[in-house]
Amino acid sequence: MTRRLVVVGGDAAGMSAAHQALRASRQRGRSLEAVVLETTHDTSYSACGIPYWISGEVATREALVARTPEEHRRLGIDLRLGARATHVDHDAGEVHWIGPEGEQRLGYDELVLATGARPFAPAWARDESGCLAPGIQVVKTLDDGAWWLDALAGPSRQVVVAGGSYIGLEMAEALLARGHRVTLLTRSRVMSSLDEPMSARIEEVLTRGGVEVLTGAAVSGVERGADGALEAVLAGELRVEADLLVLALGVAPATDLVADLDLPRSARGALRPDPQGRLRDGLWAAGDCCEVRHRLTGEWIYLPLGTHANKMGRVTGDAIGGGELAFPGVLGTAITRFAAGPAYVEVARTGLGLAEARRAGLDVLEVTTEGTTASGYHPEAQPLALSMVGERGSGRLLGAEVVGGRGAAKRIDTVAMALWQGARVADLAWADLAYAPPFATAWEFVSLAARRLAERL
Amino acid sequence: MTRRLVVVGGDAAGMSAAHQALRASRQRGRSLEAVVLETTHDTSYSACGIPYWISGEVATREALVARTPEEHRRLGIDLRLGARATHVDHDAGEVHWIGPEGEQRLGYDELVLATGARPFAPAWARDESGCLAPGIQVVKTLDDGAWWLDALAGPSRQVVVAGGSYIGLEMAEALLARGHRVTLLTRSRVMSSLDEPMSARIEEVLTRGGVEVLTGAAVSGVERGADGALEAVLAGELRVEADLLVLALGVAPATDLVADLDLPRSARGALRPDPQGRLRDGLWAAGDCCEVRHRLTGEWIYLPLGTHANKMGRVTGDAIGGGELAFPGVLGTAITRFAAGPAYVEVARTGLGLAEARRAGLDVLEVTTEGTTASGYHPEAQPLALSMVGERGSGRLLGAEVVGGRGAAKRIDTVAMALWQGARVADLAWADLAYAPPFATAWEFVSLAARRLAERL
Repeated sequence: MTRRLVVVGGDAAGMSAAHQALRASRQRGRSLEAVVLETTHDTSYSACGIPYWISGEVATREALVARTPEEHRRLGIDLRLGARATHVDHDAGEVHWIGPEGEQRLGYDELVLATGARPFAPAWARDESGCLAPGIQVVKTLDDGAWWLDALAGPSRQVVVAGGSYIGLEMAEALLARGHRVTLLTRSRVMSSLDEPMSARIEEVLTRGGVEVLTGAAVSGVERGADGALEAVLAGELRVEADLLVLALGVAPATDLVADLDLPRSARGALRPDPQGRLRDGLWAAGDCCEVRHRLTGEWIYLPLGTHANKMGRVTGDAIGGGELAFPGVLGTAITRFAAGPAYVEVARTGLGLAEARRAGLDVLEVTTEGTTASGYHPEAQPLALSMVGERGSGRLLGAEVVGGRGAAKRIDTVAMALWQGARVADLAWADLAYAPPFATAWEFVSLAARRLAERL
Repeated sequence: MTRRLVVVGGDAAGMSAAHQALRASRQRGRSLEAVVLETTHDTSYSACGIPYWISGEVATREALVARTPEEHRRLGIDLRLGARATHVDHDAGEVHWIGPEGEQRLGYDELVLATGARPFAPAWARDESGCLAPGIQVVKTLDDGAWWLDALAGPSRQVVVAGGSYIGLEMAEALLARGHRVTLLTRSRVMSSLDEPMSARIEEVLTRGGVEVLTGAAVSGVERGADGALEAVLAGELRVEADLLVLALGVAPATDLVADLDLPRSARGALRPDPQGRLRDGLWAAGDCCEVRHRLTGEWIYLPLGTHANKMGRVTGDAIGGGELAFPGVLGTAITRFAAGPAYVEVARTGLGLAEARRAGLDVLEVTTEGTTASGYHPEAQPLALSMVGERGSGRLLGAEVVGGRGAAKRIDTVAMALWQGARVADLAWADLAYAPPFATAWEFVSLAARRLAERL
């Protein structure tokens, strides 16, 4: 008998789940049908790539689509586009949805919630119908990207970016690349998920690249002209002229669909599935609508990233198909960069920062080491700084943050891998890492930083 | 009472040992005097950097010197230059040496052998006095570098590089950069420390960059004109015209000094100190005159690299000063690149290749994965290929090799760190590594390669 899997949401998590469920079922000779309901007309696109489309580095909308609806269908997915799920009747095993042909119901044996996240948009950013008001846009869907390309097509504008985190930085880069003027407003400091001294380094490069950075500036509203057009963005006493406003204030889990069900979830509504993606029998969740477990602290955190969505989707689909993959948790690894001509900075983090580690009640030490990405005499050598956190007594590695020139940030993976395996700081210090003059110093910088920390722990 | 440490050899291992011995002694309130005997007039220079000096990317000889003799002296080292050790009388605790003032003896409490390695030069490459014959040179010391700068100063020459490994590739790049014609001869294939398919990829780029590559060509002699000048290089039947010949055939441990002592050593004469650098009471060794233990197989191997030399020097000095550092072994991690305009390739390896793993009697599987260094749609994305080896049954990660464009090779550190911690292939597959479009694909390539291998193990 063919079981039916219904997936709500056709991006990274949902599509990974659907394909892996089919694959795992096939391997076990089980018959499964996979239906995916997707509100938009896009599937499996790279939201992270949108700023590079807006900047012009990526030529087409299509380039951001990893798999088109047609490709998914060819691989055996029953994909319904423009299909918005409105209600889950789990007792009846039915999902209600509205499509081109009106309201419908679909029975399921297994339901995966992959409803993603919704960009945060304060009341002042919306019109009466709840939609974003003129001149204001987020950066989440391909349609948002198209909106920006359209809005930016004319002469140079004054654009305010609200939010100094990953998307804020990437949009600042894209806007400059297109010749617009950019003011970035951030509630606390830029890249506030990193410890404070790193923010100062990043802010310096943003400013040098031509971004006006205003810190401690929480956007509180906008000012409009008589014609309703955006004129300025307000942050308390502060008034910044603006033709356009990028809302990059973070996202919230989109879990309204199952608000009435008694499911494990956070105060903000993010779902908390088990390591296989299970919420309860026959009901699963994956991706940005979920929290994830931090591998070091064991705590639930909300970290909506494509990497986790892909992995969660895969384990969930695997479990539905009878497999035994499990989501192993996260370290909070993240990376970005800002590039505007010679002003260039790479940023990455993994594990616990100093503040986070202290909040977790750990007795820790942080050491910041400065060095170069290549041998000092090599023309490609770029400065970088790495702050590493370790636990006193145990010598356990807890986390690191890196800021620097080209070649700096991906070094975070070496630290992440050490963390992943529960390494001590000294393990990282003495590991056999790769050295040649164009790539590293003779004591690879990450090891050098670890050695300096290990000597003080 | 002040003890005396004598170190023979003033490069990476010897100087690290001397400084760390002073530091560790000071920390423990012990009185130690450190004398270093160095044959040349250079200390602590980057041999790996010499090709970049020859290419012109590094402007001066001085730039390759990490610490000058004066700096070492200021830091408390009694450094004797032009001082060649000729005999070790360990029973008497004396080293005999010849310096500017003739033969002398120096008593010691602790002796560190950091005599390094000697480039391999067959009989046909030498004159009657045993020196390298005209037109032939190695790439080991700063004086060698100066020789090359001098020899290459004139118009474009035909240069043969004998040896297709790290130094061979780096010299080929340097020679092209200076406008010379390059033919590279290699006994088996280029980069033969990697598995065969990787060699083909590298050879293709070398050829595209303008290097004439002749594989299966073991240099067997040279042909000279009536004036004694080099005219051609011979490899069996093969005759290749040559104005100059780079000997890059590998190095051998320089341990003649202690040939008469009964010490743990390999058949080739490389010393085998314990993890603290001890050969016997009062006698120590570090650096390129030693073998190292492979962390995965436990076997001794000869891998003369600056990274190991630095570390071995440091642990040896630490032990002499009463510390407890220990050399933790190696993975055989190595990296290089070849760049000639648009022809660009990065190469790296760590752990066991397929052939090595099989020789070690392991039941293994290798999977080669192709991907990109950044998201496929990002303009900086470069192709790369990674071969990963894992053990069947246990799922243990054993090694990897990577060949690809800019940003490919340093990824080997992530694999090396996983290996260092004894990870399984699946650990690497699911680790939380850094993703953003300019840096990686959503499944970071290293994890993707591991996932594909893990699924087959």
